[in-house]
Amino acid sequence: MWGGGMMFNELVLQEEARPLLEEIGVRLQPIYEGYYTADAIETVTTLASQTVKAGATIFNCISAEDVLVRENQVCGLVLSWTAVEIAGLHVDPLTIRAKCVVDATGHDIEVVKVFLRKNQPATLTTPTGGIGGERSMWAEMGERDTVAHTKEIYPGLFVSGMAATATHGAFRMGPIFGGMFLSGKKVAELIHQRLSGEG
Amino acid sequence: MWGGGMMFNELVLQEEARPLLEEIGVRLQPIYEGYYTADAIETVTTLASQTVKAGATIFNCISAEDVLVRENQVCGLVLSWTAVEIAGLHVDPLTIRAKCVVDATGHDIEVVKVFLRKNQPATLTTPTGGIGGERSMWAEMGERDTVAHTKEIYPGLFVSGMAATATHGAFRMGPIFGGMFLSGKKVAELIHQRLSGEG
Amino acid sequence: MWGGGMMFNELVLQEEARPLLEEIGVRLQPIYEGYYTADAIETVTTLASQTVKAGATIFNCISAEDVLVRENQVCGLVLSWTAVEIAGLHVDPLTIRAKCVVDATGHDIEVVKVFLRKNQPATLTTPTGGIGGERSMWAEMGERDTVAHTKEIYPGLFVSGMAATATHGAFRMGPIFGGMFLSGKKVAELIHQRLSGEG
Amino acid sequence: MWGGGMMFNELVLQEEARPLLEEIGVRLQPIYEGYYTADAIETVTTLASQTVKAGATIFNCISAEDVLVRENQVCGLVLSWTAVEIAGLHVDPLTIRAKCVVDATGHDIEVVKVFLRKNQPATLTTPTGGIGGERSMWAEMGERDTVAHTKEIYPGLFVSGMAATATHGAFRMGPIFGGMFLSGKKVAELIHQRLSGEG
Amino acid sequence: MWGGGMMFNELVLQEEARPLLEEIGVRLQPIYEGYYTADAIETVTTLASQTVKAGATIFNCISAEDVLVRENQVCGLVLSWTAVEIAGLHVDPLTIRAKCVVDATGHDIEVVKVFLRKNQPATLTTPTGGIGGERSMWAEMGERDTVAHTKEIYPGLFVSGMAATATHGAFRMGPIFGGMFLSGKKVAELIHQRLSGEG
Amino acid sequence: MWGGGMMFNELVLQEEARPLLEEIGVRLQPIYEGYYTADAIETVTTLASQTVKAGATIFNCISAEDVLVRENQVCGLVLSWTAVEIAGLHVDPLTIRAKCVVDATGHDIEVVKVFLRKNQPATLTTPTGGIGGERSMWAEMGERDTVAHTKEIYPGLFVSGMAATATHGAFRMGPIFGGMFLSGKKVAELIHQRLSGEG
Amino acid sequence: MWGGGMMFNELVLQEEARPLLEEIGVRLQPIYEGYYTADAIETVTTLASQTVKAGATIFNCISAEDVLVRENQVCGLVLSWTAVEIAGLHVDPLTIRAKCVVDATGHDIEVVKVFLRKNQPATLTTPTGGIGGERSMWAEMGERDTVAHTKEIYPGLFVSGMAATATHGAFRMGPIFGGMFLSGKKVAELIHQRLSGEG
Amino acid sequence: MWGGGMMFNELVLQEEARPLLEEIGVRLQPIYEGYYTADAIETVTTLASQTVKAGATIFNCISAEDVLVRENQVCGLVLSWTAVEIAGLHVDPLTIRAKCVVDATGHDIEVVKVFLRKNQPATLTTPTGGIGGERSMWAEMGERDTVAHTKEIYPGLFVSGMAATATHGAFRMGPIFGGMFLSGKKVAELIHQRLSGEG
Repeated sequence: MWGGGMMFNELVLQEEARPLLEEIGVRLQPIYEGYYTADAIETVTTLASQTVKAGATIFNCISAEDVLVRENQVCGLVLSWTAVEIAGLHVDPLTIRAKCVVDATGHDIEVVKVFLRKNQPATLTTPTGGIGGERSMWAEMGERDTVAHTKEIYPGLFVSGMAATATHGAFRMGPIFGGMFLSGKKVAELIHQRLSGEG
Repeated sequence: MWGGGMMFNELVLQEEARPLLEEIGVRLQPIYEGYYTADAIETVTTLASQTVKAGATIFNCISAEDVLVRENQVCGLVLSWTAVEIAGLHVDPLTIRAKCVVDATGHDIEVVKVFLRKNQPATLTTPTGGIGGERSMWAEMGERDTVAHTKEIYPGLFVSGMAATATHGAFRMGPIFGGMFLSGKKVAELIHQRLSGEG
Repeated sequence: MWGGGMMFNELVLQEEARPLLEEIGVRLQPIYEGYYTADAIETVTTLASQTVKAGATIFNCISAEDVLVRENQVCGLVLSWTAVEIAGLHVDPLTIRAKCVVDATGHDIEVVKVFLRKNQPATLTTPTGGIGGERSMWAEMGERDTVAHTKEIYPGLFVSGMAATATHGAFRMGPIFGGMFLSGKKVAELIHQRLSGEG
Repeated sequence: MWGGGMMFNELVLQEEARPLLEEIGVRLQPIYEGYYTADAIETVTTLASQTVKAGATIFNCISAEDVLVRENQVCGLVLSWTAVEIAGLHVDPLTIRAKCVVDATGHDIEVVKVFLRKNQPATLTTPTGGIGGERSMWAEMGERDTVAHTKEIYPGLFVSGMAATATHGAFRMGPIFGGMFLSGKKVAELIHQRLSGEG
Repeated sequence: MWGGGMMFNELVLQEEARPLLEEIGVRLQPIYEGYYTADAIETVTTLASQTVKAGATIFNCISAEDVLVRENQVCGLVLSWTAVEIAGLHVDPLTIRAKCVVDATGHDIEVVKVFLRKNQPATLTTPTGGIGGERSMWAEMGERDTVAHTKEIYPGLFVSGMAATATHGAFRMGPIFGGMFLSGKKVAELIHQRLSGEG
Repeated sequence: MWGGGMMFNELVLQEEARPLLEEIGVRLQPIYEGYYTADAIETVTTLASQTVKAGATIFNCISAEDVLVRENQVCGLVLSWTAVEIAGLHVDPLTIRAKCVVDATGHDIEVVKVFLRKNQPATLTTPTGGIGGERSMWAEMGERDTVAHTKEIYPGLFVSGMAATATHGAFRMGPIFGGMFLSGKKVAELIHQRLSGEG
Repeated sequence: MWGGGMMFNELVLQEEARPLLEEIGVRLQPIYEGYYTADAIETVTTLASQTVKAGATIFNCISAEDVLVRENQVCGLVLSWTAVEIAGLHVDPLTIRAKCVVDATGHDIEVVKVFLRKNQPATLTTPTGGIGGERSMWAEMGERDTVAHTKEIYPGLFVSGMAATATHGAFRMGPIFGGMFLSGKKVAELIHQRLSGEG
Repeated sequence: MWGGGMMFNELVLQEEARPLLEEIGVRLQPIYEGYYTADAIETVTTLASQTVKAGATIFNCISAEDVLVRENQVCGLVLSWTAVEIAGLHVDPLTIRAKCVVDATGHDIEVVKVFLRKNQPATLTTPTGGIGGERSMWAEMGERDTVAHTKEIYPGLFVSGMAATATHGAFRMGPIFGGMFLSGKKVAELIHQRLSGEG
């Protein structure tokens, strides 16, 4: 998102995402009926700034290389320094326990992939039981489906954003960012329900 | 083509391609019965120069990383900067709509491959319904087949040149460039018919 | 700054910088007399978010490779895509005019270096007339000097932060971030005076 | 030039270069008083196409790694395959004799640099007798000076385009391409005079 | 192990491994009921130092690239210089005969993999007859299973440590090192029995 | 072979290869019953020197990237510069016709692999009809089998040396070079018979 | 030292170093009058193991990128993760205070170099006041001089081992390791005197 | 030399070198008055083969990284594995004593450079006392001078071939190989005289 569409520093968003962005203070310029643009830097930094102030902790420089499992339940992540990974060193990881793990790694769906590869014969709540794979771009379908497919796909493991469409086997979203934000909101609500005993 | 055969800056062409090259002003030297050589630089630059003057727009520095689809129809391309790809950065792409998309990426048939990989169970109009794969070199067969297999292989998606033989599963062309030019001419005619409502 | 000190995601700040950070909404935790810590992600994103909202435009994915000059005056920058630079391509740059150019590139003082290398015998307002070079770390001296040496070092060209100490030949700052913020504030005030006709 | 200014596929040219481009058939669109734009691909390919048709031979895939000298005269080039250089192999070069050698390698002035480095104490016809080095960008001065400094700088060795300003120590040209074309025309005329016994 | 958990230079060990480490002289600090920490450097160097003094020969700078086989029996290793491998050179290897070969290469189980890939249809004494693959992390199970699965999996070929769990298809161990040491002790005992005619 | 066993500059050879090496003038030192050592440099250079003098032409700096086929017959090679391949450039290849093509590329069996990958459903004269794959090292078997499996595996395509064992699915040879030389001699005799109408 | 001389896993040591190695338990084999060999792995690991047990703390995975200074005194180090350096990331360092800093980085004398480069016009207690540079190898002289030149070369900054000869401008040591160990012992004694108020 | 001129596998030689090549059995084809061509592979392999048979030992896979000195005399080389150098590992070298060391490393004159850089203020028997540096190509002068400048340039250190012209500051040789062979012969004679007490 940092570069906007093709490095032009602007993001395009649809009407549905307007309330969410206005709530956190990102300024929108209407371009044509139902679409807005926002400054890419303002959007990313304001989102992250408000997220941290709202109570989230973002661990920079750290990557997840595996998940913790226990009795058919994903229950945490195996963490290592990103720099160690880039440098190609072999250093023992540490772990973090988590009631809910969200894969929001986009096209690459890295967490779901490592989970599936290492825990056969686990089955996901997708049409095939495995990873459907992202289809080519059909923006209207993609925007709608990314929210629809945002869900818990294995006990303790959720997907959101492009990782949701790619896991389900749905169409790729276009260069419009609203669906991604709405997917993020939906997964937050699902987790909130779970943690408060409703989901 | 820039380097000619093995960097010797000369291209070999057969009689069939002579009219096409003479029409755009590339000078040919006969070498033996039915074959000509042309300067590699003159051929490439004159072709591109005349193509642009004829009305084509060539977008330099831009790569196609995916296609747009809609109801079993290829209807455009997902574009990004080539430099972004080489640099390994993650920047959001933009898109372009197109009535006809041609894969002329040679051996690699990059557009057809990304389309097939991401849109199973799509079927191409090839013997296997998928990519046949380029066979080893049999120059006479390759020259003939590259024109024969230049066609629309999926609604909205055409192949030409080496991408046509590689998609069909035909023999590789030899170091002679005529078939490739004639394939390019054929795909242009097919698209012209389509856009004018004939094809 | 993203990683905090040694990737621990926390920044240390001194009392002098507290008002500035509180003004833009970064939360501080006192650690001992006169020192505070702040979350690295919250600090960076809140600073950038507020900067953009205050009217600045940040061009992401773009690098400055040279300056514009005119009659012993720096009057703009030569810009290219960062991705082009990383990819090692040769693409013609574009330019932007500016009444004030600030080098805030840290240790590397990239803008001052390219200016000096290409415009001999230009003289800076430093003790040697050239680049003094950053000395080893002496945190107390560095914090104080980075503000003192934040200034216009050639008509139209300012330095701030670590670029200020490195240009002047002063001691390196320690792993405390207050001086850097105060230097940024000072250079903003100097430019404001200049543009409003006072400096 | 292939990418136009910052990969936007368009070149800007001034009035002075219009006759030259119209003569070879490049189409220009006026943008404002005295300035035109041209398609980058059309300009490069038409120039090269017409250059070859006019009798020049362009050796693709070949690099010059040194010059031939004889009694204080540059009299040819030492050639190797570009691919060999990129691959880092050690292969013996071949040579080509030339009455006039032109360094048109731009900022890098590669031919002049290798000549100077290896033939001390040779002296060029520049203000310092050596390489002045390109100064920062001052478009108006650069456009004018690139033509003025296009000349023979050592018996048998000419400079043109950005190599001319960089060798002389003049200001860098802006993102406007006319001066470069006029410099190319001037060096061609100088060599024509020399070969016909006038220069 | 050199870096401890995530480069913090400390290892965590459980009660079961205490006698083994105390026997060779590694100092342990209790942290909480049943767990100890040890200095990473002290642990690695003391282990290696005592191992060599006890009679083992460690060949540094040498890698195994294949195994020797004879009548369904692994009977040695094909060795080459590690530097040759890193440098990508082609140099002929030498060989070493061995009554017992242990794969203790961790996650990568390099020896078992090369053996299986090259000697189909060999069958291992694992549930699937092939490599089960390491599952995600479940520390309690992993610690227990790494000892249980330490054994001879093909005549002449043993596995220990993470290679044992990865070959069997068991859960990954957590950032606790005791199981690994106990697995090493078990494989040593198995080999001792074999060589003394008991196993 | 240049480095001898593990860079020690010595080759080990068995009695069977002695006559062949003595015939071309390589000096052998007996080490123990039935085995000799030879200087690696002397062996390689004398072999190549005598091969060229005997009438062979070795094209240095050239790689084969594909084969020519015609009616179920391999009938030549597609050639390109090795430097072009290393440099990652795209340059059109040239071709060479051949009555017999020998794959002597060792473990990698590059020619057979490219032939099989591109010409399905071609069948080789091996137990599986495809590539068996090199097994682990069993020196005695490998030495014997490399000669036995040296043959024509498809009309026009021969294998020798390690490529013969790897194609057939036989055991890897040990660090002894005699079998390889005898395999080379056998393939030369097979081709000689073929070309003289006997094979 | 890990690889021994040229990867042969053996170290050669002279009589003078015997007591030191025997004291910490490294086994020596006499080879000829006054010289011994030791296993490389045993020597390195036993040295490190005993060093840690004697009270030293070795921080693995951490590099020194600069020194702390204060009034013409080196008083600590600027530290960063080695992985960050290898990965080419920009992360803020932390610092450690030290009464004595020893440069034992061998040929590269990294600490002394960064100190001198950044703190001109500092003067070392060497013949030139700067870095003399290692001379070619003269083993007898090198062994003797490495101990002689082990000393404090600037207040708070010591050199030992090859860094001592390289800083002073002395001859390189041969492939014998005794002088290096004796130099290490000497620098330890110098620091002990300093810390106990004698040096 | 392996690739011949520009990878064409042929070498050009002048009359003066004919006797030397005929003596060792390299076949020459006259091309025009006083010049011959030879097959590149035949020339290199026959030279090396005959050199080894004549008594020389060539150590493959080994590089010289420094020289041994003693009282203003070069008396040997510091050796390491080439693979270790390419792999960037740190492994202790070994040494070899030599009465005469020849730098025949071509343009790079690696041995002379490392000697000069590390042993200031040593003086060579060249016009400047240091390295003159190779001048641009003047084939006639270069062929003649390479033999003239083949000599002992420091006690125990000789130069031959391109290293001789580059050290002296003479013109570069053209793509003709005779001078290089004659230089090699001359340095062999100089060393023979020295070792037999005449030089």
